[in-house]
Amino acid sequence: MKLATIRTPGGTAVVRIDGDTAVEIPGVADVGELLATVGVAGAAEADGVVHTTADLDYAPLVTSPGKIICVGLNYRAHILETKRDFPAHPTLFAKFADCLIGANDDIVIPVEDTKDIDWEGELVIVIGQEVRRARGAEAEAAIAGYSAANDVSMRDWQYRSTQWDQGKFWEASTPVGPVLATRDEIPFQARITTTVNGEVKQEGEIHDLVFGPAALVEYVSTITTLRPGDLILTGTPGGVGHVKQPPEFMAPGDTVTIAIDGIGSLTNVLVAG
Amino acid sequence: MKLATIRTPGGTAVVRIDGDTAVEIPGVADVGELLATVGVAGAAEADGVVHTTADLDYAPLVTSPGKIICVGLNYRAHILETKRDFPAHPTLFAKFADCLIGANDDIVIPVEDTKDIDWEGELVIVIGQEVRRARGAEAEAAIAGYSAANDVSMRDWQYRSTQWDQGKFWEASTPVGPVLATRDEIPFQARITTTVNGEVKQEGEIHDLVFGPAALVEYVSTITTLRPGDLILTGTPGGVGHVKQPPEFMAPGDTVTIAIDGIGSLTNVLVAG
Repeated sequence: MKLATIRTPGGTAVVRIDGDTAVEIPGVADVGELLATVGVAGAAEADGVVHTTADLDYAPLVTSPGKIICVGLNYRAHILETKRDFPAHPTLFAKFADCLIGANDDIVIPVEDTKDIDWEGELVIVIGQEVRRARGAEAEAAIAGYSAANDVSMRDWQYRSTQWDQGKFWEASTPVGPVLATRDEIPFQARITTTVNGEVKQEGEIHDLVFGPAALVEYVSTITTLRPGDLILTGTPGGVGHVKQPPEFMAPGDTVTIAIDGIGSLTNVLVAG
Repeated sequence: MKLATIRTPGGTAVVRIDGDTAVEIPGVADVGELLATVGVAGAAEADGVVHTTADLDYAPLVTSPGKIICVGLNYRAHILETKRDFPAHPTLFAKFADCLIGANDDIVIPVEDTKDIDWEGELVIVIGQEVRRARGAEAEAAIAGYSAANDVSMRDWQYRSTQWDQGKFWEASTPVGPVLATRDEIPFQARITTTVNGEVKQEGEIHDLVFGPAALVEYVSTITTLRPGDLILTGTPGGVGHVKQPPEFMAPGDTVTIAIDGIGSLTNVLVAG
């Protein structure tokens, strides 16, 4: 199943996407509220207003997640290419709900404040069950499905101190969507690609994660309860701009696309503001 | 004025503290909701159920802040004692609402998962106005008042990677309160002290901050909108446990108190769980 949060004249709504049509699920305003109430299963049969998929205006998949936890350095191929050792533990940092935008919204860059704007295509874990210290099958079962994100990073701020967060929680910088896809929608060797102005910048396979989805749920839920609608951004493959020689950054006018097989794509234009 | 969020049989409520009595402000469930609606000024005259201050059961001052932003390395005396250079920019990291507990709640330590439990007494900025790119007087005016926090830190997790967050966002680890005190309540040379089992571990003066409250509001609001109820934990003075020789940590059974002149104190017992 694929579910999305869309904007309608009456506010945000959840749709189940069936091929070219999208059917509204009555009674819930975003995928986070759906997961906290009827769950994915409750969306299977519900029947409401019908839209054409091509006409959808995507909101952030979850409009107000209680937690957005991000993982750094998590693709084997990228760690090997940078000649680092494999880490013993995940590297975690955080974003806030104010970071999130829809799958096709503009990324508004305050150009007087920041200039080194980098891309990071990422697989997103969407939590469906409240869990603490989940292990094994319970951790797997806590995952409602997967989505895509662009963890747009202001490198000039990220490296002002040892702690990355200030380059990571810029308002309205992080598209998440277009859909929550349940696991059966995603091929085993699903690829993730990042394209800027038509040029491929990042390519990876999501099974190449050092710490996979269930392991991340186990790890994070040791620290704190995970709740329906919480998001874990699982890290980015090689090919980010700031490590290229010479470094490459995005600027207003650029178009960046993140695509993951089985989930779909985010395409966002950078605008100055 | 001093305002607190307390637990009552009917749920949480906001009280204005007038000496030994606390008067409920009708219509708002926590200080965050008060700030987002009538504001501090709206609490001055409102009149409801009266409590005795000694009987109050404090909830977290703001029960669900949209953002909890923490500052590292921000006391001049501590930077000098560690022979570091003064930083050019604040160091920021993040917590989530699930971290928060009330001023006298137990700190429940999952002892099978973490052992190196450290104290960090901190002054807290409580945001009262929605601001983005606030400068000067606007940044000052965005501050509704101040509170106290213990940024309890799991050092064994904090230093598992370069990013501190995983030692900082443990569930139910961070008391914030007991009150929001408006600036006029706080003496110019207010001291902050941390005491463990009656022994003073940290002492500082809150005017010793490298990046003061207005500067922090300016800095963070460049990155993202600050909203009523958002919290900024401003950093801790010297004397944390893990840099002592030999290192000192807390364990179940210990009692830790953070006190700030004009705001009051947090006293929490560590329990295994």
